[in-house]
Amino acid sequence: MSKNLFSLFLLSILLPISLKAQDDTKAIIKNLYDNALTNKQAYNQLGLLCEKAPGRLIGTPNSFIAVDLMKKYLEDLGADTVFLQAFSSPAWICHSASATLLMDGKKIPLKIDALGPSGSTSKKGVSAEIIEVMSLDEVKALGREKIEGKIVFYNRPMNPSYFNTFRAYSEAVDQRVWGPDIAREMGAVASITRSVNSNLDDYPHTGSCHFKDEKIPAIAVSTNDAERLSQALKTNPHLKVNIKVDAEDIVTHTFNIIADLKGHEKPNEYLVVGGHLDAWHNTQGAHDDGVGCLQSTEVLRLFKETGLKNKRSLRIILYMDEELYQSGGKAYANYSKEHHIHNYFALESDAGGFTPRGFTTDASALNLEKIKAFLPLLEPYGIQFINAGGGGVDIGPLKETGVTLSGYRSDWQRYFDMHHSPNDSFDKINFREMQLGSAAMTSLIYLIDQNDLGQ
Amino acid sequence: MSKNLFSLFLLSILLPISLKAQDDTKAIIKNLYDNALTNKQAYNQLGLLCEKAPGRLIGTPNSFIAVDLMKKYLEDLGADTVFLQAFSSPAWICHSASATLLMDGKKIPLKIDALGPSGSTSKKGVSAEIIEVMSLDEVKALGREKIEGKIVFYNRPMNPSYFNTFRAYSEAVDQRVWGPDIAREMGAVASITRSVNSNLDDYPHTGSCHFKDEKIPAIAVSTNDAERLSQALKTNPHLKVNIKVDAEDIVTHTFNIIADLKGHEKPNEYLVVGGHLDAWHNTQGAHDDGVGCLQSTEVLRLFKETGLKNKRSLRIILYMDEELYQSGGKAYANYSKEHHIHNYFALESDAGGFTPRGFTTDASALNLEKIKAFLPLLEPYGIQFINAGGGGVDIGPLKETGVTLSGYRSDWQRYFDMHHSPNDSFDKINFREMQLGSAAMTSLIYLIDQNDLGQ
Repeated sequence: MSKNLFSLFLLSILLPISLKAQDDTKAIIKNLYDNALTNKQAYNQLGLLCEKAPGRLIGTPNSFIAVDLMKKYLEDLGADTVFLQAFSSPAWICHSASATLLMDGKKIPLKIDALGPSGSTSKKGVSAEIIEVMSLDEVKALGREKIEGKIVFYNRPMNPSYFNTFRAYSEAVDQRVWGPDIAREMGAVASITRSVNSNLDDYPHTGSCHFKDEKIPAIAVSTNDAERLSQALKTNPHLKVNIKVDAEDIVTHTFNIIADLKGHEKPNEYLVVGGHLDAWHNTQGAHDDGVGCLQSTEVLRLFKETGLKNKRSLRIILYMDEELYQSGGKAYANYSKEHHIHNYFALESDAGGFTPRGFTTDASALNLEKIKAFLPLLEPYGIQFINAGGGGVDIGPLKETGVTLSGYRSDWQRYFDMHHSPNDSFDKINFREMQLGSAAMTSLIYLIDQNDLGQ
Repeated sequence: MSKNLFSLFLLSILLPISLKAQDDTKAIIKNLYDNALTNKQAYNQLGLLCEKAPGRLIGTPNSFIAVDLMKKYLEDLGADTVFLQAFSSPAWICHSASATLLMDGKKIPLKIDALGPSGSTSKKGVSAEIIEVMSLDEVKALGREKIEGKIVFYNRPMNPSYFNTFRAYSEAVDQRVWGPDIAREMGAVASITRSVNSNLDDYPHTGSCHFKDEKIPAIAVSTNDAERLSQALKTNPHLKVNIKVDAEDIVTHTFNIIADLKGHEKPNEYLVVGGHLDAWHNTQGAHDDGVGCLQSTEVLRLFKETGLKNKRSLRIILYMDEELYQSGGKAYANYSKEHHIHNYFALESDAGGFTPRGFTTDASALNLEKIKAFLPLLEPYGIQFINAGGGGVDIGPLKETGVTLSGYRSDWQRYFDMHHSPNDSFDKINFREMQLGSAAMTSLIYLIDQNDLGQ
């Protein structure tokens, strides 16, 4: 028995679906893909979002432009209701950041950007010797004696030999997330982190870091400049760098966008599908996560335009602030609790819009096997796996109410070349790849809803 | 039982491999991937090939530069022998091609290129009314009465709703391959074919066409200009186009490059791995098929550098002239017959160097099941399928001697955006994606050789 036959066999055992119903389902899914691959509406809207509202970090003027653009887009798509869920959150606005290597009487500019929420410097910036380290433990071991008054430079690369770049990212990103604060604890005056990026290139890749209390200036340097800096330190260990950051902490009033398509049988149960609308200050945020927003709105459009009947209500959420404080995800979870909303299943797209690879889900073991049995329906469209795993940062806070979470996974080989950098621009989006994701997500939501596999 | 467990179960039935041996094999494969993902030698060489020898169509000066470059590269890799297999072939050299739309007294240049081997025009070119058609049958139905003296314009797009772009390509490409000759038969003075391309863009995509006898000028127009031309014809059906092509037919003496790594047990049996070195006159030929050449040379490098013992001889062939007359593939098949060479298995990479998807093979049904049983070893690296199917154009002529053929398949969503156009340039190559292919091909060759599954 081939694997496909075996999977069909599993499908027939696990789900009470007749051969006729299987054929109908195949036809429905084909119809979704046909529509997705021939309709450029979402792709064009993503282009508009990237062009009109790059750097749409929470609290920025462009974040509000993005909200306006996408709210209107969802209204035009014919959602039954579109509303803005308002909430307040701290935010951080980056006005400028630069760094200069001071070497042999010369000033050599470095390709850097501020991490969020980096501390600021005076206008003259902060100048100090740099000390290169490969891990947080190394900083702790060096201690205050060696670190005080210096700039800590974290320079451990992502491991290129892993097939899964997300694994390599997760193993390197501690230098960005916790590195600045640990440097601060040891008395450092600033920190530089090698961009958490698969390749050697000239883009600084920013991202979030956490400070427990006081902040120091914290920047990311491009991988090429990280290499150069490391090389220069070998010949001159007393090199100094000057860092300037002009940023401010604010509190802002902002919004998640929520658009519903009412369910035909259980309108009070919600199939949540979403991505995040915000993007770092240095990028168009095409793959992270403009594409996830537009793939989510496509689920609504495809249900409507192909005439699919959703038993439960479809709820598209474009979350604000995944990047900095994850306040949008928390705000919707709180809103759900306050209003006793029954979120039945939640699907997030926040891992790029490249060619499709699969889904992860934290469904129960039994439900996971049932959901996996859908694979033969999706494999012809490039879905390789449905595996145990998480959903995503924005839908994560829903977990405490028992919602099954799922994440869409596109191919990850190129993702970290672009992630959190100016390289994440609309020209990196391939229409077909994006839309294969939209159709895969719509298919999964349809199958979950029809077969009551959400909770 | 999950699919993976089931596949492992199949593996244990179909191949007499112990669990210990399975673990050893896993470690060997991991070692191949580790090396491939951390060594940029082949990637850099591909960059050099694209830079130094673009447009390396058979018989062109750049084709000889490419042969020199790659012969030296294979020698430097430490192949046991590297030799040039010489042969003669007709060739076609394109000096220039242009087309102008004559409308309302204006001359509007069109984005076009000559198909190979287009006929030439006088210096003034050929000017005639154009007649738009959607199929070869339409030209036959219109007949000599409607076609004679005109320029036939084939304008049927690739079907965008197919998941498999190769299927869409194969259904549209008859307009390019047979269209010009059928137009000629009906008395047309030239032909224009809409670029066989997935997207609307400004690149003319060239390719081969076949003439039985006499030739006419035959060009491809970019999809955007095809749309414009079609639109213009709606308001003015008597539009004229002027086409100029300056090309010549020659006979050339040329080469396949053959590099061997001697087998340790059966040195007279050959594991052939190859791609084609030539590329159309309008392109760097990065994905088609510079990347296939360098992925093939990587198989040799990875065997050597990871210390793998090949039972049979590994034979890397960089074929000349896949594009125009497929003379290199035929020449090696003839050479094999003359010299009684035992080609045991042949693997070709000529479908792009994007993120990996799988392999196709024309192995016997039993061997196919055995080869499919390797999937659990390769799935962790993105190989989704091993399916029944062909090998490729260059290794095809080996079939008559009973060789099992196989083709490496990378993700096909972007391939036809670039194929046979100036858009197929080195900057479209992703190092990791290319090298995942190199390692997958090496793994397959190793598994075939170890388990005697070639014939």
